[in-house]
Amino acid sequence: MNKKYGKVAIEKVELELWENPTTERDYEIDLEFPEFTCLCPRSGYPDFATIKAFYTPDKSVVELKSFKLYLNSFRDIAISHEEVTNKIFGDLETALKPRRLTVTGDFNPRGNLKTVIRVSSEE
Amino acid sequence: MNKKYGKVAIEKVELELWENPTTERDYEIDLEFPEFTCLCPRSGYPDFATIKAFYTPDKSVVELKSFKLYLNSFRDIAISHEEVTNKIFGDLETALKPRRLTVTGDFNPRGNLKTVIRVSSEE
Amino acid sequence: MNKKYGKVAIEKVELELWENPTTERDYEIDLEFPEFTCLCPRSGYPDFATIKAFYTPDKSVVELKSFKLYLNSFRDIAISHEEVTNKIFGDLETALKPRRLTVTGDFNPRGNLKTVIRVSSEE
Amino acid sequence: MNKKYGKVAIEKVELELWENPTTERDYEIDLEFPEFTCLCPRSGYPDFATIKAFYTPDKSVVELKSFKLYLNSFRDIAISHEEVTNKIFGDLETALKPRRLTVTGDFNPRGNLKTVIRVSSEE
Amino acid sequence: MNKKYGKVAIEKVELELWENPTTERDYEIDLEFPEFTCLCPRSGYPDFATIKAFYTPDKSVVELKSFKLYLNSFRDIAISHEEVTNKIFGDLETALKPRRLTVTGDFNPRGNLKTVIRVSSEE
Amino acid sequence: MNKKYGKVAIEKVELELWENPTTERDYEIDLEFPEFTCLCPRSGYPDFATIKAFYTPDKSVVELKSFKLYLNSFRDIAISHEEVTNKIFGDLETALKPRRLTVTGDFNPRGNLKTVIRVSSEE
Amino acid sequence: MNKKYGKVAIEKVELELWENPTTERDYEIDLEFPEFTCLCPRSGYPDFATIKAFYTPDKSVVELKSFKLYLNSFRDIAISHEEVTNKIFGDLETALKPRRLTVTGDFNPRGNLKTVIRVSSEE
Amino acid sequence: MNKKYGKVAIEKVELELWENPTTERDYEIDLEFPEFTCLCPRSGYPDFATIKAFYTPDKSVVELKSFKLYLNSFRDIAISHEEVTNKIFGDLETALKPRRLTVTGDFNPRGNLKTVIRVSSEE
Amino acid sequence: MNKKYGKVAIEKVELELWENPTTERDYEIDLEFPEFTCLCPRSGYPDFATIKAFYTPDKSVVELKSFKLYLNSFRDIAISHEEVTNKIFGDLETALKPRRLTVTGDFNPRGNLKTVIRVSSEE
Amino acid sequence: MNKKYGKVAIEKVELELWENPTTERDYEIDLEFPEFTCLCPRSGYPDFATIKAFYTPDKSVVELKSFKLYLNSFRDIAISHEEVTNKIFGDLETALKPRRLTVTGDFNPRGNLKTVIRVSSEE
Repeated sequence: MNKKYGKVAIEKVELELWENPTTERDYEIDLEFPEFTCLCPRSGYPDFATIKAFYTPDKSVVELKSFKLYLNSFRDIAISHEEVTNKIFGDLETALKPRRLTVTGDFNPRGNLKTVIRVSSEE
Repeated sequence: MNKKYGKVAIEKVELELWENPTTERDYEIDLEFPEFTCLCPRSGYPDFATIKAFYTPDKSVVELKSFKLYLNSFRDIAISHEEVTNKIFGDLETALKPRRLTVTGDFNPRGNLKTVIRVSSEE
Repeated sequence: MNKKYGKVAIEKVELELWENPTTERDYEIDLEFPEFTCLCPRSGYPDFATIKAFYTPDKSVVELKSFKLYLNSFRDIAISHEEVTNKIFGDLETALKPRRLTVTGDFNPRGNLKTVIRVSSEE
Repeated sequence: MNKKYGKVAIEKVELELWENPTTERDYEIDLEFPEFTCLCPRSGYPDFATIKAFYTPDKSVVELKSFKLYLNSFRDIAISHEEVTNKIFGDLETALKPRRLTVTGDFNPRGNLKTVIRVSSEE
Repeated sequence: MNKKYGKVAIEKVELELWENPTTERDYEIDLEFPEFTCLCPRSGYPDFATIKAFYTPDKSVVELKSFKLYLNSFRDIAISHEEVTNKIFGDLETALKPRRLTVTGDFNPRGNLKTVIRVSSEE
Repeated sequence: MNKKYGKVAIEKVELELWENPTTERDYEIDLEFPEFTCLCPRSGYPDFATIKAFYTPDKSVVELKSFKLYLNSFRDIAISHEEVTNKIFGDLETALKPRRLTVTGDFNPRGNLKTVIRVSSEE
Repeated sequence: MNKKYGKVAIEKVELELWENPTTERDYEIDLEFPEFTCLCPRSGYPDFATIKAFYTPDKSVVELKSFKLYLNSFRDIAISHEEVTNKIFGDLETALKPRRLTVTGDFNPRGNLKTVIRVSSEE
Repeated sequence: MNKKYGKVAIEKVELELWENPTTERDYEIDLEFPEFTCLCPRSGYPDFATIKAFYTPDKSVVELKSFKLYLNSFRDIAISHEEVTNKIFGDLETALKPRRLTVTGDFNPRGNLKTVIRVSSEE
Repeated sequence: MNKKYGKVAIEKVELELWENPTTERDYEIDLEFPEFTCLCPRSGYPDFATIKAFYTPDKSVVELKSFKLYLNSFRDIAISHEEVTNKIFGDLETALKPRRLTVTGDFNPRGNLKTVIRVSSEE
Repeated sequence: MNKKYGKVAIEKVELELWENPTTERDYEIDLEFPEFTCLCPRSGYPDFATIKAFYTPDKSVVELKSFKLYLNSFRDIAISHEEVTNKIFGDLETALKPRRLTVTGDFNPRGNLKTVIRVSSEE
C-alpha cells in the first residue's frame, strides 16, 4: 500500500472520470485540499501545500476520491512548487478538457519565504 | 441499513407550489438549508452539505416546508455531489419556472477534500 | 388579547404620513426593524423577521411610530414570508409614492431552513 | 433648564466661517459628531444620532467649535429625523457654499426601529 | 422512507477496540464528530448534532473508523436527544471501561430551541 | 534642543532631499506618522493627528528623519487642521516636485468632533 | 535522503541533545510543529497533525533540526494517533529526562471525526 | 559562513534560475519574505522589512533558496528603503526578464514613521 | 559603525543603568522588542525573535536605548535559542538585581518548527 | 499660553479636588488619556503615551479638566518613562489620598522597543 512512485509511476495514477450529469449548462466546481505534500527537489525535505482547483466541466467531472489519491501520489515525488502546480493543471486539463480551469498551489513557508502559484485558463 | 432507493422513488416527493402573491414585479427569494444529507454513490457513506437556492419567482413560489421535506427525501439516496446539485436545480426549474435561479451545494470535506458546486441560470 | 384579525382589519392600521421637509432634492431614508413577528399560514406558529425599508421620499415620509405600529399589527396575521414582504412593499409604495423603494424580510430559520425576501423598485 | 427654543431662536446660532487657506485646489474635509441630541416632535423624548458632514470647501471652512455649538443648539428643539438632517445640510450649504457636500444622520433605534438619513449634493 | 429500527439492531454495530499502547500513565483522548444524525421519536424528522467524547483510556482505546460507523448507525434510529447521548456514553463505558469519560451531544435547534446534553463520569 | 519656533522659524526646518535612485520608472512611497501634534489657534490647547503622505517621486525623495523632524517642528505652532494639512502638502510639493502627491491629516476628536482632511494632486 | 524507515529503523533516528546552558533554574521550552504526517495503520492513507511539546529541561535540550528530522521520520510509518503521541512523549522523556513534559497530537479530521491526544507528566 | 559583504560583494550573490516548466501560458508566482534586514545608511542601525515579489515568469523562475540567500545578503549593507526596493526589483528584472513584476518593501517604523515602497512594471 | 562583535566582545556592550526614581514601592516595567536577530550556531543563517522582559526594579532601571543596542549587539553572534534567552535573563539579573524578572524569547519558525523560551525568577 | 515649565514650575500646576459625594462606600474611577506627550531626557525628542489612572476615592476626587491640564503640563518636560509614571502616581496619591490607586504609562515604541510602566498601591 505504501509503494513509492518514481517519476514514471506518477503518470499512471488514474484520474477517474465520471460523466457530467448536465452538460447543457455551465456550472462551477470548486475543490480544496489542504493536505498536499511532496518533496523538495533540492533538499529532499517534505513540502506542504493547499491545492485548489476551480473548473467548469464539459463532458466529464473528476471523481473525488481518485482526485485525492492522485494528489496523495505526489507524497514521494521530488518536484518544485512551480512544476507541480503546472502539472496538476495540465493533468486536469488533459483528462477533463474543462470549459474553464484554475489551479492554485498555496505552499507553507520554507526558510520563512512563502510561495503561492496560480495557473489559470482565464486571462 | 444503507438500502439504496432507485431514481423513481425520489421523483414522487412533491414540491408544493404556492401562487406568487405579486407577479407584476421581480423580487428575490434566498433559501439556505444546512442540514442536507445524502449517500456517497461509491462508498455508501453519508455525505453532508448546505444547500442554497436563490431565485426570482414567476407564477409560483415553493412552499417552505415541502422544500425542506423534498431536501430530506435525499437522505437515503446514493447520488454524487454534482448530480444532486444539478437535480435540485432542475427540479426547482421545472416546478417553478422561475425568472432566475441559482443553486449551490456546499459539501463537508471527504478525505479532507472540500467541494462546492454552483449551478445558475445566470451567466 | 390574542384576538385574531381578518384580512380586512389589517387594512385599517394607518401609516401616518408627514410632509417631506425638502422635496427639492433626492435623499435616502434607511429603516430597520428587528422585532417583526407574524404567524405561519400553514402551522399557525409564530414567525420572526427583521424588516428593512430603504427609500427616497417624494412628497411624504412615513412617521416612525406609525410605521412601527403598522409592523406590530401583523402579530396575529397568518401570512407567508413572500406575501408579507410584498404587502409591506406595496403599502409603503401606495402611501408614500416614493422615488425609489426596497423592502427586505430577513426571516429566522424554520426547520433550519432560512429565508430572505427582497422586493425593490430598482432593477 | 429645559427651556424650549422656538424656530426662530435656532436660526441665531452662528456657524463661524474661516477663510479656506488654499482655495486653488479641491480637498476634502470629513467631520463626525457622535453626540447629537434633539427631541422627538411627537413624544418630546430625546433622540440621539451621529451626524456626519463631508465636504469640499470653496471660499470658507466651518470653524470646528462653532459647528459643535451649532449641533449642540438642537438639544431642546423638537424636530423629526428627516427635517433635522435636511436642515443641517441646508445651513451648511447656505453658509459655506461648498463645492460638494454630504450630510448623514445616523439615529439610535426608537422602539427598536433604526433610521439613517443621507442628504448629498452628489448624485 | 423513515422505517424504524428496533432497539436490537443498533446493539450489533461493534465498537472495535485497540490495545492502549501505554497503560502506565493517564493521558487524554478528545474526539469530535459534527455529522451525527438520527430521527426524532415524535415527528420522525431528522435531528442533527455534534457528538464529543473525551476520555482517559485504561486497557483499550476505540478504533476511530469503527467509532464513526457506530455513530453513523444511528442514522435511521428514532431516539430522543437525552437517550442517544446517554446510550453513546453507556456503550463507550461498557466497551472501554475508561478511567474517565465525558460525552456531549450538541444538537441543532428545533423550533429555534437549542439543546446540549452532557454526560460525565466526573463530578 | 527644545527651542520653540515662531511662524517664521518653521519655514527654516529643512526637508532634506535625497536623489531618487531610479527616476526611469514610476513607483510609490507611502509614509505614515501617528505622532503629529500642534496647537489649536483658538484655545492654545494641543491637537493630535496621524499624518499620511503618499507620493510618486520625480528627481528627489524626502529623507525620513528630516521628514519626522519637520513634522515635529509643528509642536509649538498654533495652526488650524485645514491649514496645517495644506501646508504639509505645499511644502512637500515645493521641495519634491513629485509626479503625484496626497497628504491626509487624521485628527483626534475635539469636543468629540472628529476631523479628517485630505489634499491630493489627483482628481 | 528519502530513505524509508521500517518499524525498526525509526528507533535509530537520533534526537541530538545539546547541553542545557543554565541548569540552575527551571525554565520553559515550547515547541510546535504543524507539518507532522504519518500513515494510518488500518487504511495506509496519510494522516496529518500538529505536534506540540512543552517542557522544562534538566541536563539537556533537544536540538531543533534533529527534532524536526525525528518528526519527519514518521512520514512512512503506519502508526495510530494514540501510539505516535505516546511514542513521541516516551522518546523525549527517555532522551531528555526533563523536569516536566507535555506532548499534544492535534490530528486533522478523518471521516470528519477530529482527534486530539494529550500526554503529560503533570497531573 | 558569516562573511560580510561590501557594496561590491553583494553584486556577486547569484540568483539561481530554474527553467520555467511551462512557458506556453501566463501564470502567477507570489513570494513573501518577512525577515528582511539591512542597515540604515545614515545611522548604521538595522532596518527591518517584509519584501514581497509578485511576477509572471517568462523563460525562468527564481529558485527559492537562492532568493532567500540573496535577500539575506543585504544584512550588512547600508542602503535606503527606496534604493533597496528598487535594487531588488532591478535584480529580479535583469535575471528573470519576467512578463510582469511587482516588488514591495514594507518597512518597520523608524521614529514611529512607517514607510512602504512599491515598484511595479504595471501601470 | 557596523563593527562586528565576537563572543568576547558581546560582554562589553554595556547596559546603562539609571537610578530607580522610586525604590520605596514595587512597580512593573514591561519591555517588548520585535526586531531581535542573531545567527543559528549550526547553520550560520539568521534567526529572528521578539524578546520580552518584564521586571520589578530595585535600585536600578535599564536605560532603553542601551537595552536596544545591547539586543542589537547579538546580530552577528551564533547562539542557540535557549542560550540567548538565558543570557539576556542573566545579564539583566546581574546588572539590575531586580526584585522579579521574566524574559521570553518568541522565535520565528525554522523548518516550520516554532519555539518559545520563557525564563523567570518566579516559580 | 505656550509658556514652558522647568522642573519647579510643574509643581505649581494644581490638581483641583472635588469632594467625593459618597464616601460611605468604595467605588472605582477609571481614567484614560491617550494624548500624553513629554520629552526624552536623553535625546530631547518627544515621547508619547497613554496614561491610565484607576482609583477608589476617599475624601476627594480629581476634577477632570484640571487633571487633563496637569497631564498637558508635561509637554515640555524632559523626563524618563519610569519617572513620569511614578510622578503622576505620587502626585495623585498626595492630592487624593485614595483608598487604592494604579497608574499605567503605555508608551509608544522608540527604536521599536515598546515600554509599559505600571505603578500600584495594590500588591
